[in-house]
Amino acid sequence: FNKLVSDYEWLRWIVSFFMGVFIGIIAYLAHVGVSNILKLKFSFVEKMIEYDFWLGFLAYFTSNTVLATLSSLLAVYYEPTAAGSGIPEVKGYLNGTKIPHTLKMKTLWTKLLSMIFAVSANLQVGAEGPMIHIGAIVGNGFSQAQSKEIGFKIPFLRTFRNDKDKRDFVTSGAGAGVAAAFGAPLGGALFSLEEVSSFWTTSLTWRTFFACMIATFTMKLLQDQSASLNGLMIFNMGIADKLFAYKILELVPFIIIGVLGGLAGAAFTAINIRVTAFRREKINKIKSLRVLEVFMIAALSTIFQFILPLMFKCKDIDINIIPGHGENVTESDLEVFKQFNCGEGQYNELASIIWASNEESVTNLLSINTQHMTNTARLGIPALLLFFVFYILFAAYTAGSGISSGTFVPMIVIGAAYGRACGVLVTMMFPTSYQIDPGVYAIMGAAAFMGGVSRLTVSLTVILIEVTNQLQYLLPIMITVMVAKWTADAIIHPFFDILIQMKYIPYLEPHPSKEMKLLVCKHIMAKKPVYCCEKDTLGNILEILRETTHNGFPVVNNDEEKLVKGVILRSQLLMVLERVSDVYIPNSETVYSHMEYTTRLTWKLPKVEDFGFDPADYEMEIDLSDVMNITVITVNVEFAVSEAFQLFRTMGLRHMPVVNENNKLKGIITKKDLLEKTCEQRYLELSHMKLGIDQLLHEGDE
Amino acid sequence: FNKLVSDYEWLRWIVSFFMGVFIGIIAYLAHVGVSNILKLKFSFVEKMIEYDFWLGFLAYFTSNTVLATLSSLLAVYYEPTAAGSGIPEVKGYLNGTKIPHTLKMKTLWTKLLSMIFAVSANLQVGAEGPMIHIGAIVGNGFSQAQSKEIGFKIPFLRTFRNDKDKRDFVTSGAGAGVAAAFGAPLGGALFSLEEVSSFWTTSLTWRTFFACMIATFTMKLLQDQSASLNGLMIFNMGIADKLFAYKILELVPFIIIGVLGGLAGAAFTAINIRVTAFRREKINKIKSLRVLEVFMIAALSTIFQFILPLMFKCKDIDINIIPGHGENVTESDLEVFKQFNCGEGQYNELASIIWASNEESVTNLLSINTQHMTNTARLGIPALLLFFVFYILFAAYTAGSGISSGTFVPMIVIGAAYGRACGVLVTMMFPTSYQIDPGVYAIMGAAAFMGGVSRLTVSLTVILIEVTNQLQYLLPIMITVMVAKWTADAIIHPFFDILIQMKYIPYLEPHPSKEMKLLVCKHIMAKKPVYCCEKDTLGNILEILRETTHNGFPVVNNDEEKLVKGVILRSQLLMVLERVSDVYIPNSETVYSHMEYTTRLTWKLPKVEDFGFDPADYEMEIDLSDVMNITVITVNVEFAVSEAFQLFRTMGLRHMPVVNENNKLKGIITKKDLLEKTCEQRYLELSHMKLGIDQLLHEGDE
Repeated sequence: FNKLVSDYEWLRWIVSFFMGVFIGIIAYLAHVGVSNILKLKFSFVEKMIEYDFWLGFLAYFTSNTVLATLSSLLAVYYEPTAAGSGIPEVKGYLNGTKIPHTLKMKTLWTKLLSMIFAVSANLQVGAEGPMIHIGAIVGNGFSQAQSKEIGFKIPFLRTFRNDKDKRDFVTSGAGAGVAAAFGAPLGGALFSLEEVSSFWTTSLTWRTFFACMIATFTMKLLQDQSASLNGLMIFNMGIADKLFAYKILELVPFIIIGVLGGLAGAAFTAINIRVTAFRREKINKIKSLRVLEVFMIAALSTIFQFILPLMFKCKDIDINIIPGHGENVTESDLEVFKQFNCGEGQYNELASIIWASNEESVTNLLSINTQHMTNTARLGIPALLLFFVFYILFAAYTAGSGISSGTFVPMIVIGAAYGRACGVLVTMMFPTSYQIDPGVYAIMGAAAFMGGVSRLTVSLTVILIEVTNQLQYLLPIMITVMVAKWTADAIIHPFFDILIQMKYIPYLEPHPSKEMKLLVCKHIMAKKPVYCCEKDTLGNILEILRETTHNGFPVVNNDEEKLVKGVILRSQLLMVLERVSDVYIPNSETVYSHMEYTTRLTWKLPKVEDFGFDPADYEMEIDLSDVMNITVITVNVEFAVSEAFQLFRTMGLRHMPVVNENNKLKGIITKKDLLEKTCEQRYLELSHMKLGIDQLLHEGDE
Repeated sequence: FNKLVSDYEWLRWIVSFFMGVFIGIIAYLAHVGVSNILKLKFSFVEKMIEYDFWLGFLAYFTSNTVLATLSSLLAVYYEPTAAGSGIPEVKGYLNGTKIPHTLKMKTLWTKLLSMIFAVSANLQVGAEGPMIHIGAIVGNGFSQAQSKEIGFKIPFLRTFRNDKDKRDFVTSGAGAGVAAAFGAPLGGALFSLEEVSSFWTTSLTWRTFFACMIATFTMKLLQDQSASLNGLMIFNMGIADKLFAYKILELVPFIIIGVLGGLAGAAFTAINIRVTAFRREKINKIKSLRVLEVFMIAALSTIFQFILPLMFKCKDIDINIIPGHGENVTESDLEVFKQFNCGEGQYNELASIIWASNEESVTNLLSINTQHMTNTARLGIPALLLFFVFYILFAAYTAGSGISSGTFVPMIVIGAAYGRACGVLVTMMFPTSYQIDPGVYAIMGAAAFMGGVSRLTVSLTVILIEVTNQLQYLLPIMITVMVAKWTADAIIHPFFDILIQMKYIPYLEPHPSKEMKLLVCKHIMAKKPVYCCEKDTLGNILEILRETTHNGFPVVNNDEEKLVKGVILRSQLLMVLERVSDVYIPNSETVYSHMEYTTRLTWKLPKVEDFGFDPADYEMEIDLSDVMNITVITVNVEFAVSEAFQLFRTMGLRHMPVVNENNKLKGIITKKDLLEKTCEQRYLELSHMKLGIDQLLHEGDE
């Protein structure tokens, strides 16, 4: 049958609109939740500190550990899929691998709550990664316009209940999640394109862009009815009063920052790999241990946040060194200076960044100021480097533990810390140059570290530009990101790729590997494929369904010739059997063929165990030719694996029959056969047999 | 054979670097050329005006018409491929259609010179479209590292002499061209992705991004050694002294501007279609007529530029109304006010935009000013609307005439003119609101009109943001662009798509059309494909090569069974024959097989007429099985055309054998069979035969 893809393009736009609004609302809820809990907590702790310093510590310690434990309980016991950022799962889904529970509503709410608690607990995690997953779930929910869990279903949207539309909406939703989280509509759309999606079309660009815009706008509108431009975390660095705020020679330190960012990013990734391996081995098997681990992280982190600042002397708040607005100092300007253990009118420089919300830390680190000499003194190199070491270790350890959390903002914080340290160093080396601003070096550090970890390029640059509102630094940011990416590429795989590998999600990279170019299909195919015949017996079909878990089966003309005629999905076979059982009369010798099979997916597929056919009828013949999909791509046994890979990747295939020159079925290739590791191993096996390339290419011939 | 794709990834980066540098230099040359000629011209004409007004007119008229004629002579006589913007040709090439001369060095130089003259002649054309084509040519030249024309060739780069690498470098080059032209590295990369390319991979994103960055940077460096951020045409609008310069209610006029932009864009496109059809019919056939046409356009345009301003009264230059810098008025600030026919200290408002370079017009139209009431008065609605009508008519007529020219900057100028007019109207409606700034409306107008003509979304938004350096308007620009795109989409096809159609370039759209979903391959395939046998005779091969112009041929096992074994390219057949002729001994009964055929393209392919085989040897057998490509994608006759389309589009196929269920060759599908128009027509033919869908699907069965 020729399935007609829906042409309700306008309906897609309307659905995208509501999806964007919904994601914007969720981002707003997350923002409100986090900021209110944090405000409450800090004002309470500050009051306690006034009373007694160590009572303040106790209050801070208790609230942080309680929040962290709550967050962990949700993500460990209530819905385990909600743990982590969810980016690997979404990427895997869009690459064609379904992971159970990934796109469920329950996951959404659990994730949202767990994330709010985790961020409020002053753990070294961010709120943005989970928003990507949440956006993806919303996209899926809207495209399906149904949810089994909450019993909600809009019938006229069933036209989108196909794989392609679902995938498209999930892609847009993920983009809108980033967009709303960062207040970066362009960056969100580009992130979705660069990192998340595996299949992309121009029309999808437009719709994703639109959804991102709506989500950002909704978020802004809710946050501030005057529609000012603050997102969940636009960092207002203050306004640079010179338009062109860097000199070309400054590219030298920027490039050095890029190299350092690449190295630090690689180190971060390496630490996290070790931790994840250790965690999988020792902790993840026992749920209570996972919660305990989170408790321990929170406890340790809190202690460090409180103890480390005591190593630094108090400094006087100098009104002149407040970024940008020397004249009119407002309450909120002073908020970034944490009094902590100091007297009135004084501040503790490390506490101002370490004993603060992520947003405060970033604002502090990125602040631009023309009176840079005093500004330099505000955060000294020792405080910055100590903060950097503390944050990178805790962030690398925490990522992947039993809470819902992201690594985006931690990456910005870490990068900004060492970047600013470099900036202060440069100002000290060239004390007479008033153009050097440590805030700019902090942006470069953030760009470099994020580039080193994620290897994003275009979307990262755009997100940073949108978040800091500093378009004039476009070119140096681009250069720094590229340098960091190259450096890190030389050392280790990208962070998200490793996460996917460590979660055992079969993922097809964008390009075939070297080994694939040396193999042909017969080397990697499953050589005894399970197949149906055009007119197959009831018994055979039942057996196939019972004995295998495959998603699709080749259909051949008969058992002898085995000429491939089409492909049939497991779901189609089940539906055929359901139709047959509707009209089934035991022992009646009916031939079941040319019935009006429907192609629409029913609410729930029948299970193969539920059919009550009489084994005496197992020889009964069923005609599958009207149901099977005749638009099937087959390849020859000699077809290059690299090209087969391209077919899977670009056409979104799940299985592909392999035939000989007479179109006789010889094998089948599925996604798992095309994984880089599988092909590498197969190639090694073949070469260990001491075969030359030439023989290799002919191995397996009959 | 399995062709191993080159893995010299680092070499690609190095080539991209030099490509970027080269494109940056060319963009700089273009900029220097245009601005110097314009400066010279205007200062000369102004001197003449001081002497006598009509003498000034004569000077202006003469210089414009001479420059325009020069430009036209180059593009009409010397290298006709250089005419126009070249965007359709580049898009066509990247879609798989080679158009002769498109990527030649001669085209580059002609294009560059013709464009410089055309822009200097104050024609209503821009310099940016040609830069895309020029960038593409540079990309091609660098990837091939050779040029037959100038006898230049670097042997070690021959690894990129394959279709895919060539295509990738052309894509990057086109992006770098835009980037350098606008000073918009991100926008350039995104433009290449959104509009130009047909095939795109993640790694290509990175390299394009890199090339764009290098090109922009080179351009900036040459232009201003302090590496300030001016591109070829960053329009410095002045600095908005409030960060959030629009109110949410202003979205209403912005959306109206969007709708108007969509309508105006559609009108522009419709006018240009008529003009192009007329021009093809009446003018293009005679070369001298094309030059005369350009002369006439220049003459008329010049007359209007000089006469229309006389309708407006002179105004006093008020120092306070200069954008942004009320206090320190510099010489260059005053330059935007054209004295023209007025007295000292006065200016003519229409002359300030119409009798000016594109850059001056845009700067004038987009200027932001907080003292908006006086600013409003600077350019009144009558002057703006008159300018709008003049410019849209001339720009729509000029595009496609016998000069090298683009439509990007004209689109910005036209849009900014009516946008500013709307802005002035709104300020007059709400005279008490000091937040309304006509300059902002001008940006929205530019965004809307460009969206209406080009239907770009993401890249257009980014380019506008980069060019105006006004990140805070991101959201309203996005909304305006979307509205304009939707409005125009409802009326007419995108401008560039129509250009491609009118140039008869076979182009596969990103998505299959409705008809394709109703057809299967047997309906559209060529039913008597020309094929070779695995062991074919010399005579047959020669005949095939002589009688057809096809690029590739299916290879079957023998004439009776016709089982498809592979595909062989024309170039491969020619190389085989060349090898055979090297060892050829007439009448010797040799069997030419298993020779060491090389897969590398030689410097020049032999011509089929050049072979001197003795007709007596025509029965000699040649074994093609080692040369042919066995990694061939074949589909069944019942395969859906929409899916076949996807295969062509995503895998970059050029021909695909169609087989029956025994793998017997039944037909072949090429790109031309998959064009929307072809399928539409085929579908109509089939339905006119009064066949129902059901019969339709079985029509053609044996």
